[in-house]
Amino acid sequence: MLKDDLLKFIPDHSRVTENETVRLNHSKGITYHAPVLPDIVVFPKTEEEVQKVVQYAIDKQIPIVPFGAGSSLEGHIIPLKGGITMDFTLMNKIIEVRPEDFLVKVQPGVTRTQLNLALKKHGMFFPIDPGADATIGGMAATNASGTNAVYYGTMKHNILGLRSVMANGAVISTGSETVKTSTGYNLTELLVGSEGTLGVFTEITLKVYGIPEHIVAAKAVFENVEQAGAAAALVLQAGINIGRIELVDGKTIEAVNDHVGTDFKVKPTLFLEFHGSRAAAEDDYTVTKELMEDSGALSFKAEADSLKRAQLWDARHQAASAIVSREPGKLLVVTDVCVPISKLAECIGKTRELAEEHNIDAAILGHVGDGNFHAAFCVDSNDESEMANFKDLNTKIVDLAFKFGGTCSGEHGIGMGKKEFLKEQYKEALPFMKIIKESFDPNNLFNPGKIF
Amino acid sequence: MLKDDLLKFIPDHSRVTENETVRLNHSKGITYHAPVLPDIVVFPKTEEEVQKVVQYAIDKQIPIVPFGAGSSLEGHIIPLKGGITMDFTLMNKIIEVRPEDFLVKVQPGVTRTQLNLALKKHGMFFPIDPGADATIGGMAATNASGTNAVYYGTMKHNILGLRSVMANGAVISTGSETVKTSTGYNLTELLVGSEGTLGVFTEITLKVYGIPEHIVAAKAVFENVEQAGAAAALVLQAGINIGRIELVDGKTIEAVNDHVGTDFKVKPTLFLEFHGSRAAAEDDYTVTKELMEDSGALSFKAEADSLKRAQLWDARHQAASAIVSREPGKLLVVTDVCVPISKLAECIGKTRELAEEHNIDAAILGHVGDGNFHAAFCVDSNDESEMANFKDLNTKIVDLAFKFGGTCSGEHGIGMGKKEFLKEQYKEALPFMKIIKESFDPNNLFNPGKIF
Repeated sequence: MLKDDLLKFIPDHSRVTENETVRLNHSKGITYHAPVLPDIVVFPKTEEEVQKVVQYAIDKQIPIVPFGAGSSLEGHIIPLKGGITMDFTLMNKIIEVRPEDFLVKVQPGVTRTQLNLALKKHGMFFPIDPGADATIGGMAATNASGTNAVYYGTMKHNILGLRSVMANGAVISTGSETVKTSTGYNLTELLVGSEGTLGVFTEITLKVYGIPEHIVAAKAVFENVEQAGAAAALVLQAGINIGRIELVDGKTIEAVNDHVGTDFKVKPTLFLEFHGSRAAAEDDYTVTKELMEDSGALSFKAEADSLKRAQLWDARHQAASAIVSREPGKLLVVTDVCVPISKLAECIGKTRELAEEHNIDAAILGHVGDGNFHAAFCVDSNDESEMANFKDLNTKIVDLAFKFGGTCSGEHGIGMGKKEFLKEQYKEALPFMKIIKESFDPNNLFNPGKIF
Repeated sequence: MLKDDLLKFIPDHSRVTENETVRLNHSKGITYHAPVLPDIVVFPKTEEEVQKVVQYAIDKQIPIVPFGAGSSLEGHIIPLKGGITMDFTLMNKIIEVRPEDFLVKVQPGVTRTQLNLALKKHGMFFPIDPGADATIGGMAATNASGTNAVYYGTMKHNILGLRSVMANGAVISTGSETVKTSTGYNLTELLVGSEGTLGVFTEITLKVYGIPEHIVAAKAVFENVEQAGAAAALVLQAGINIGRIELVDGKTIEAVNDHVGTDFKVKPTLFLEFHGSRAAAEDDYTVTKELMEDSGALSFKAEADSLKRAQLWDARHQAASAIVSREPGKLLVVTDVCVPISKLAECIGKTRELAEEHNIDAAILGHVGDGNFHAAFCVDSNDESEMANFKDLNTKIVDLAFKFGGTCSGEHGIGMGKKEFLKEQYKEALPFMKIIKESFDPNNLFNPGKIF
C-alpha cells in the first residue's frame, strides 16, 4: 500500500523499494550504532517528487529520514521509527555554476568530489573537506567542516541559501545569491546543522573560491604535544594565512609506521599548508619555519610539488586507517569535541592519558586552527564491556572539553549519540531549540529521535 | 507607577527616567523616520537588571525596545508602541580579552572604537566597521557589516556566542567559546540580525583578529563604472587577499571636490586595501596594479604610510558628508541593497540613472567585494512630495536588486522601512520567521513593529 502510494509520486519501481537488502543498507551508517530498517526507501530526482512524498508522509503521519552518502558519524541516518528513507543519491545535478559570482547551485545528492571535479575547469573549488566523500545535502544538514575550516570556515559560512521542503509540506527559499543579506531571521543558518529534523533540502547555493595559485605543505616534529600546540598558536597569532594546520600525536605516528612500514619520527607532529599567491605562500612558509624553529621544532620540512606534498602529509592521511587496520572486523568510532584554541595541546595530552587508562589504542588528531580534535579507534559493537568502556572514554572526553570551556561536538553533530551532552551544554537554550522543532514539525516526522 | 516599579530593579534615579528630553532622544535615530516617544527610558548596567526589567515588562505586558548608539538606519530603535526603552550605553564593560583564543567577551553597550582601543595593546582588533561608532549589541542585532566584510565577513561570521534575555524572562547562552560547534540548532545566528525582536542581549563573545602586519592602500580611476566593476571582479577572482574594495561613482567624486575643495578626477574610482604580511601585501598590490592597468585604469596609486593611506581614501571617506553638507537641515537617507558580485557595476550605473530621473543628488558607493551598494542623499521629512519621491526611488532600487537576483537589504536590516520588501523577497519563508517570533514572543513585546 505504502509502495503503491509512493509510486504515484515517483512512478519508477527502481526508485521506490521495499527490498530488504536496500532497506538494510539504509538502516545504518559506518559506525557502531545499532541499525534500524526503514519501511521503504525512495530515490527522488526532483524537488517536486520530494515535496509530494513529504506531503504524503505528513498526511499519513509517516516519519521521513533524508539519506546522502551515509557517512555521518553520529547515527543521523538511522530511521529510529522506521518510515520512509529518502536517498538523494540520484538527485545529483549541478544546477548552475557562476564563477563570476563565486557561487554554485546544486541538488543535495551532489558529492564533494563530484562538485570539485566540475568546478576545476573554472579554476574554482569548494573547500569544505570532511574526509568522507559526503553529499552536499548531508554536509549542510550536519554543518560539516574539516581540515581547512581554519581558513575557509565550515558549511554554515559557505551556504548562501537553500531550498527546503518543510514539515507542513511547503517549499521555502532561504538566504540569497548574494554574499551578504540582513533580511529578517537567518533561516539558512537555522536549517544548516539541523540534522534533517527541520527541513529536507532540495537545492543548495554554495560559495566557491578560486583554486589557490600556490600551495606549500610543511611538517614539523616536536618533543612533546605542548610544544607543538604552542608553536601552532604562534602561527595563528602571526596572522599567517594558514590553509590547514593539523596535530598528530606520537602514538598515532607509531601506529602509522606499523601499518605502512614507514619510519617517521615517533613524536608529535604538525602538518601545515599555506595557500595563496606564490610570493605570499612562500613568505608564509618562511616566517613559519622561523617560528617553528624558535619553538623547539626537532625538524621542519616543506614541499610545493603536489606529489611530494601528499607524501609529506602521509602520516596524517594514514592515521585513521592505521588504527582500523589493527582490528579488522571491528567498527570505527571517532570522538569529536572542540575547545578554545589555546587549550588544544593540553587536551590532546590529557586525551592520550584517558585513552591509555581505558586500554584503548586510539589515533589522536587535532585541527589545531579550530581547537577541534578527535580520537579514532575500533570497537566490537557486540561486546558489551567494550562498548561500555568506549562510552565512558567518550563521556570523559566531553567532560574534558566542557571543563576547558569547549563544546561537545565540533563538527560531527549531535545525531543520536550526543543528546545527553547537548542537554548539559545548553541547559537554558535547549527549550528554545525544542520550541522551534515543535513549531516547525509538531508531529515530529522529520528524522525523529535525533538531537532531542 | 511605572517609574516606581522599575526603580525597585534599578535603584538609581539617574538610570530610570521619564524626563521628556531623554525620551525625545530615544524617540528617533539619525534618519527620516517619524519619532515616537517611549514611556520611560532605563539604563541597566548588569544582566540581572536587564532580566528583572524584562520579567516585569512581560508581567505587565509592556513593550521593550533595546537601544545602543541609536545609529541604525531603518528606524529599529523607534518605540512604535511606547513602553520601555532600554539604553545599553552604561552596560559597556569589556568582560574578558583572550588573545590566545582570539576572542573577547563584551557587554552590549561597548562601542566599536572602545573595543578596538582596548584590543590594540594585545595586537588584536575587531574588524567589523559599519561606519558609525555603533555598539556591539546594536551591531549584533542588525548583523552589521561594513567596508571590510569582503575579507572578515559580517557580524554573524564573528559572533561565537551570546547571552540573551528571552521573551519568557529566561536568560540563555548560545554558541560557545570555540570557533566551531555543531550542537543542535544555531540559535546564535537566529538571534544575530533579529533586530531586538527575539532577545535582549546581555553579553556577546566575539572573534578577534591579529592586526595585519602591513596595509597598503590604493586608488584606481576608470573611464566608466562598468570598467571599474570589471576590474574589481578580476581582483576578486585572482584570489588576492583584498581587505577592502570600494567603488565610488563620478558624480560622487564631483560632490566631494565641491565640498572639500579637492580636485580629484571626476570619474569612477576604486579604493582598495591589502592586508597581510609585508611580502604578501606588497605582492598583492603589484598583481593588482597589473590587473588594473590591463583593465584600462586611467591611473593607479598606492600608499603604505598610514597618513597617506587616509589621504588616498579621502574621497571615499568624505562621500556621505559631501552630500549631507549640500543641504543642511535635511535628514540623511541611505539606501541599501546587495546583488551578486558580477552585477554590481551595472546596478551602480542604473542607480545613477534612477537618481537622475528622480532629480535626486546622491552619493553612490559600492562595497564591490560583496555586491552591496548604497545611495546616500538628503530629504526634508516634512515635505510630502520629497518623501514620496525618495520612497519611489528606494522602491525602484530594491526592484533593480530583485531583478538581478539580489536582496532588499545588504547590511542595514529591515527595521520599519523594508517590511513590504521582506514579504516580497521571502513569500514562502516569511511564515516560518513569523512562527519563530510567535513562539518566542507570543505577546509581541520585543521591539514590536519591526521586521513584520
